Amino acid sequence: MGDPPHEPVELPPDPPAATGSGPGDRFLRACHRLPVDRTPVWFMRQAGRYLPEYRKLRLGRDILEMCRDPELATRVTLLPFEYMPLDAAILFSDIMVPVAAMGMDVRIEPGVGPLVDDPLRGPEDLRRLRPLDPEADVPYVLEAIRMLRKELAVPLIGFAGAPFTLASYLVEGGPSRNHEMTKAFMHGDPERWAMLMEILGAAVLAFLLAQVAAGVQAVQIFDSWVGALDPDDYTLFVLPTMRGIFDGLAEVGVPRIHFGVGTGELLPLMRQAGADVVGVDWRVPLHEAWERVGFDVAIQGNLDPATCLAPWEAVEAKALAVLRRAAGRPGHIFNLGHGVLPGTPVATLQQLVDLVHERTARPMEDGEEAW
Amino acid sequence: MGDPPHEPVELPPDPPAATGSGPGDRFLRACHRLPVDRTPVWFMRQAGRYLPEYRKLRLGRDILEMCRDPELATRVTLLPFEYMPLDAAILFSDIMVPVAAMGMDVRIEPGVGPLVDDPLRGPEDLRRLRPLDPEADVPYVLEAIRMLRKELAVPLIGFAGAPFTLASYLVEGGPSRNHEMTKAFMHGDPERWAMLMEILGAAVLAFLLAQVAAGVQAVQIFDSWVGALDPDDYTLFVLPTMRGIFDGLAEVGVPRIHFGVGTGELLPLMRQAGADVVGVDWRVPLHEAWERVGFDVAIQGNLDPATCLAPWEAVEAKALAVLRRAAGRPGHIFNLGHGVLPGTPVATLQQLVDLVHERTARPMEDGEEAW
Repeated sequence: MGDPPHEPVELPPDPPAATGSGPGDRFLRACHRLPVDRTPVWFMRQAGRYLPEYRKLRLGRDILEMCRDPELATRVTLLPFEYMPLDAAILFSDIMVPVAAMGMDVRIEPGVGPLVDDPLRGPEDLRRLRPLDPEADVPYVLEAIRMLRKELAVPLIGFAGAPFTLASYLVEGGPSRNHEMTKAFMHGDPERWAMLMEILGAAVLAFLLAQVAAGVQAVQIFDSWVGALDPDDYTLFVLPTMRGIFDGLAEVGVPRIHFGVGTGELLPLMRQAGADVVGVDWRVPLHEAWERVGFDVAIQGNLDPATCLAPWEAVEAKALAVLRRAAGRPGHIFNLGHGVLPGTPVATLQQLVDLVHERTARPMEDGEEAW
Repeated sequence: MGDPPHEPVELPPDPPAATGSGPGDRFLRACHRLPVDRTPVWFMRQAGRYLPEYRKLRLGRDILEMCRDPELATRVTLLPFEYMPLDAAILFSDIMVPVAAMGMDVRIEPGVGPLVDDPLRGPEDLRRLRPLDPEADVPYVLEAIRMLRKELAVPLIGFAGAPFTLASYLVEGGPSRNHEMTKAFMHGDPERWAMLMEILGAAVLAFLLAQVAAGVQAVQIFDSWVGALDPDDYTLFVLPTMRGIFDGLAEVGVPRIHFGVGTGELLPLMRQAGADVVGVDWRVPLHEAWERVGFDVAIQGNLDPATCLAPWEAVEAKALAVLRRAAGRPGHIFNLGHGVLPGTPVATLQQLVDLVHERTARPMEDGEEAW
């Protein structure tokens, strides 16, 4: 348990001067735990269904088809910047894009999620996954990245789904509450599970390296559903693959963000996986989450996205609690604890960006003014 | 993180003698943290879809209708005892039975869950919830309890859904991934939320007191979805009501079990709510969960139910890890971390009951033999 949510934000004893930090680089500086002029803020699914223009663009269009159109993906990625001065953009795409390109029959059912008509079940099924050659298989993603870099004044984040989360969709055939077939697979045939993780891990690494080569300035790996595992299973069945991916990314030097939902018990292990920034959901108070991953990595989060459907006063109180728990420590990136929900008012996110920027404004020169 | 899952179970230095403990009372003794001859074991949803007879009985029948038939509810409650020597029975019923009896239009959609056609949304909606008079509104539940007490050689557990979990169904209209309307309700209109909690809390308390009067020897409150809340929200919007219910139950003296899923961060608060036994899911290693709630309450759990779909060797290894973490400390009740999943083989649960009983067998007389 943390402190009550309605106290004023406490100031750190000596806010470090942040010379050189501004809107264009505060996100990347925070990833490296460098002092910043304001806490950077972006939102998972910031280019999503809460935006009327997005809903219009989606009408009659398949999401994967949208992801395969670089001009459309670019346009959607930029949409939220018409409303608010976010500190990072995240490429509009879907975690299932690479697995679809590897030969799986994937579709995104609106309001449901990814569906895989012929899931991975039998011993021969892994053969259906071709290795991913990003330049040949997903050129549209790389093209969108190149186009976006010409348009953007803030850093562009690339992303991929993590092998466990991808495997869950591929094995269950769709979104799953219990992930029971995936768990039965890993426990029942650990060797074949390791092969599946290796295949998906190699694809994720290749995909992210290609995104970096095309221009993304940071990468986020979404292991959205890995919080369904206990620490023993994570250690045995997921951690080695994640470590391999983060190691492989280390060479290109861009910040690596690792995000999952319900990962309170896994945070020390996710830290071992090797990310520079760990993204956390709202269940763990931010300062406790940061302690668990260690203050030598940056942290991203963690306002409950459901809160954003409440009146502004409630959103404000909870957002300030997040900032207070971050305590002005360098290396906090403000975000929600999961993606923006479709019913979220645009005005709430606008106010939230302003609140974070205003309440965390630091002196640019001599460190004398409070933030 | 805990220790690796494949080590032998460690013996406590001096296993206490458990004179007087046997199959009929080991569950209740464990609730009171008294020494027992074997660790008691029961399973949430032990009378459920994994049993072929249950599936047959369900054909063409509505679940709520089954719950309203005391003879059928009795028969279903007893079904798992034909297969395995469980240490407790739990009344076959559904958490939505009392709210349906309070005037809400509820149905259980097979494979989906409870659906409420006309959810609680407007400011006048709370009036639609009548106070619950158990003897008049749910006599069939009390009748089933009386019938079961004549049949059972082990204790009978009564239960109710907790106000937050019930409210989520009533506000969202069905199962929800994000509980966003419920959260918007609590943050947007805290006073009306407090009224809703009070109405539901009073009904839950009256329902459980009536169950105790009819003969149940322990009660479990399922706050299945409360793990969606952060500790601040739990403290403000849920804890006061839960404390009231547990206080109200204290007078009748039966053990009070408090269970939720994904509650790792809430465990210290759930302990404050006042239960005698806290039920935990599989995400937190059992010894860590026990530390968080305090060793002066008993603990119930916490094998991942999805594991039970894997081959027996995997189930065994993970069950032994749970027992090792319990370390023979009095007050452990073995259970799954959530309900038995429909695809679970009956044989796996049978082996699991035997495993727990065999590996935790304690000397009955002089404390000399290892367990």
